[in-house]
Amino acid sequence: MEKLKNDLLLRACKRKPVDRTPIWIMRQAGRYLPEYRAIREKHDFLTMCKTPELAAEVTIQPVDIIGVDAAIIFSDILVIPEAMGMKLQMIEGDGPVFDNPVRTERVANKLKPIDPSRDLKYVLDAISLTKKELYGRVPLIGFSGAPWTLLTYMVEGQGTKTFSNVKKLIYNNPELAHNLLKKLTTAVAHYLTAQIRAGANAVQIFDTWAGILSPRDYLIFALKYVNQLIAKIKRTDEPVIYFPKGVHYRMRTTADCGADVIGIDWTIDMEKARDKIGKKVAIQGNLDPNVLYAEPSFIKREAKKVLASYGKGTGHIFNLGHGILPDVDPAHAKVLVDYVKDKSKSYHQ
Amino acid sequence: MEKLKNDLLLRACKRKPVDRTPIWIMRQAGRYLPEYRAIREKHDFLTMCKTPELAAEVTIQPVDIIGVDAAIIFSDILVIPEAMGMKLQMIEGDGPVFDNPVRTERVANKLKPIDPSRDLKYVLDAISLTKKELYGRVPLIGFSGAPWTLLTYMVEGQGTKTFSNVKKLIYNNPELAHNLLKKLTTAVAHYLTAQIRAGANAVQIFDTWAGILSPRDYLIFALKYVNQLIAKIKRTDEPVIYFPKGVHYRMRTTADCGADVIGIDWTIDMEKARDKIGKKVAIQGNLDPNVLYAEPSFIKREAKKVLASYGKGTGHIFNLGHGILPDVDPAHAKVLVDYVKDKSKSYHQ
Repeated sequence: MEKLKNDLLLRACKRKPVDRTPIWIMRQAGRYLPEYRAIREKHDFLTMCKTPELAAEVTIQPVDIIGVDAAIIFSDILVIPEAMGMKLQMIEGDGPVFDNPVRTERVANKLKPIDPSRDLKYVLDAISLTKKELYGRVPLIGFSGAPWTLLTYMVEGQGTKTFSNVKKLIYNNPELAHNLLKKLTTAVAHYLTAQIRAGANAVQIFDTWAGILSPRDYLIFALKYVNQLIAKIKRTDEPVIYFPKGVHYRMRTTADCGADVIGIDWTIDMEKARDKIGKKVAIQGNLDPNVLYAEPSFIKREAKKVLASYGKGTGHIFNLGHGILPDVDPAHAKVLVDYVKDKSKSYHQ
Repeated sequence: MEKLKNDLLLRACKRKPVDRTPIWIMRQAGRYLPEYRAIREKHDFLTMCKTPELAAEVTIQPVDIIGVDAAIIFSDILVIPEAMGMKLQMIEGDGPVFDNPVRTERVANKLKPIDPSRDLKYVLDAISLTKKELYGRVPLIGFSGAPWTLLTYMVEGQGTKTFSNVKKLIYNNPELAHNLLKKLTTAVAHYLTAQIRAGANAVQIFDTWAGILSPRDYLIFALKYVNQLIAKIKRTDEPVIYFPKGVHYRMRTTADCGADVIGIDWTIDMEKARDKIGKKVAIQGNLDPNVLYAEPSFIKREAKKVLASYGKGTGHIFNLGHGILPDVDPAHAKVLVDYVKDKSKSYHQ
């Protein structure tokens, strides 16, 4: 294994001094890049996830094209429910759909425990191959959905505005919900451990739907299992990033979850977040993804506000507050990355 | 005009002593009631809004059936853009759609200023008729969308997850955004003033999409115009309720907007909200609408938590944290209303 030429991300995650603020972009390998679309035209989404050569290629594209400080393995959070036996379909324009959502003991009992080295070998192979092809240029981030977010997808089965099915489950059958969350916690812990063994330098836990819960339910159904999950991941020095999208409450409790980094979205005040939790964890975020639709001068102005809002010193990983949007001009993403790389230096003198 | 037999809502809005906590339910006149669906089967949605007899009938249904402490006029926030000249279609299952969204000066210049007594006479007639038919049993609430939320619908033209079009507008052409927001502020002020003159005892301003903004943009594009709007509404003692859904930041600044009541959703901690703003305003909310899917015993337990979280004394208007869901059992809504009416008494001794 080559030594990393750029370890800014890993240093910032551990709040060690850096020369400048590292930046990567959520969903950076994806639809906004013509180079990605050229490959995607020839293969469907799941085939790309399951073919290590293709996954590695699109994972590395933004490192070459945009110049980000980390790669994140091209995959999907729903590979775990699929490995547990659910039938996953990607409907163009409609997003992922599960035929037989998990809402009863009967369906839940059919879910299999997973062995990542067998059931998700393609992800691990993609990680090993990507590492090789990166030649140590930047760290590689592995990832998984958090137990709560995976449960939400598995119970809803498709896109929803109200999240009524998963709420019905936790309100009417909390025992089944907790059983499923326990199973998912074990599965995700094995999966992230396997990703680290395969070469991931850091892992991110996406809790995309944590913010639909009340503050109390968040502690009971989301954060509790994240605490257990992070404790179970076998790692040496690899940082864990936890991103509970939309969670603006219980920040101090969240910062005690064992993660090295907490991701925040653009509705959270970065300065206040640092005041509250910056002594315990690093913070990742939090530019509104829509800012990349604006003119370069505006993008720079908004990026500057995010840098200034975190302020001086290490512990900030620059990112968007959610995924990059598919019709953003790649040149705008590059403007952001170049600006942060250049202008963040003054925050580390 | 008869004197109100039940003025609990109005007293609680002004933080005057009450015997018990008043309760009403957002979107209480609607799809979850079989009595509503029976009428809706014969008439389309917009026809119901525009026919005062039908609007009055469904407005009063939840007073009779569920026993809420206030009626809210049956209407839609999009009647204003329609009155300004936009073509509104209600697509079954897909929600409202505008054919020609406002994204350029050219389209914006076609929007007409509104005269509510002419362009929205049907709403005012519905209010007058409802008042008559209510016989002073409970107060009648009028409402409008907030300028920012109306702008969002007008620019997006249809449902969106990313709000990219309205964000593109405020980032790339803030001048046009501000011009439109000014026009909308004037229109809404006239509209709510006319509703009060027609007999509305209180008015609610729905800012459904305020929470998609960063804390800074919320001040600039949403709250600023709400401040102006509330100052412009001509009223004597009629309370104003402002409900900025999803806004968890800038609560103290929000409480200075001139409203008597701030509505909060279920992700906001009621106790903390009262600590922050309870000396300035009353607070409306905040049960998760999905709780009504649960068993009666669970509904009562969660309702109790909301009551206890606000604590003793006046200034609380019980409500859901967002609209009631269409497939909720009306008996469950009644369980909630009966419980709050009965058990809230101990908080006012």
